[in-house]
Amino acid sequence: MIQPGLAGFFYKMRKIFLSVMVLFTALTASAQNKKQMVRIAKITVDPAQLEQYNSALKEQMTAAVGTEPGVLTYYAVADKKDPSHITILEIYADTAAYQLHIQTPHFKKYKAAVAGMVKSLELVDMDIIGVAKKPGM
Amino acid sequence: MIQPGLAGFFYKMRKIFLSVMVLFTALTASAQNKKQMVRIAKITVDPAQLEQYNSALKEQMTAAVGTEPGVLTYYAVADKKDPSHITILEIYADTAAYQLHIQTPHFKKYKAAVAGMVKSLELVDMDIIGVAKKPGM
Repeated sequence: MIQPGLAGFFYKMRKIFLSVMVLFTALTASAQNKKQMVRIAKITVDPAQLEQYNSALKEQMTAAVGTEPGVLTYYAVADKKDPSHITILEIYADTAAYQLHIQTPHFKKYKAAVAGMVKSLELVDMDIIGVAKKPGM
Repeated sequence: MIQPGLAGFFYKMRKIFLSVMVLFTALTASAQNKKQMVRIAKITVDPAQLEQYNSALKEQMTAAVGTEPGVLTYYAVADKKDPSHITILEIYADTAAYQLHIQTPHFKKYKAAVAGMVKSLELVDMDIIGVAKKPGM
């Protein structure tokens, strides 16, 4: 009697797990919290220092998302035709989280490291119209 | 003996579930598959038709991610200062997935619906430098 019971239990757990995954996706898709601070940064980098810049950027992104509760999302992309033109989509829990973020050691380290690499920087505040993503993306 | 066994089993399942969630996050963070097609669309919309445009856009995004295996991610955002200026970050599994996408009924319906609403459209192909996101984002 134990084997069928366990099999049923596994089946139930699998169903619960899949439901939770779908729920996470649904929550993500509707995560247009009005408190969130959404920004696009448009950055032009000295092409001769692009590798160092990208490395500093990735280190900053990983540290911020890994250690700061209010830093939610970074997507950093580069123009295929000119990789020195970089766009970053940034999502913070709220403006307070952003204010905390720019006081952190990892952000200050990044700013100091890239000061001589960044040729132009434009910050544009955004509202989310909609987000749609596959589970796990 | 059954109760402690079950408790242990639940504890194990909980640990496995958390590990899988962390793994999903890690996979997401490193999902810089070179085959992926990443694009930023910059769209200017007739302000008088902005509500209808945003509605058509969200319907298209939801249908594409919900039904097409190769449509992975859409973030649609609007300038806070001028919501008729829209930026969409789009990620497809590969260029073949994108070619399939633009042949779908939902995409064609969207294109037809917004033909008279879009004032300008710029499509820029991108490479991902890095992605960092909190679990569930």
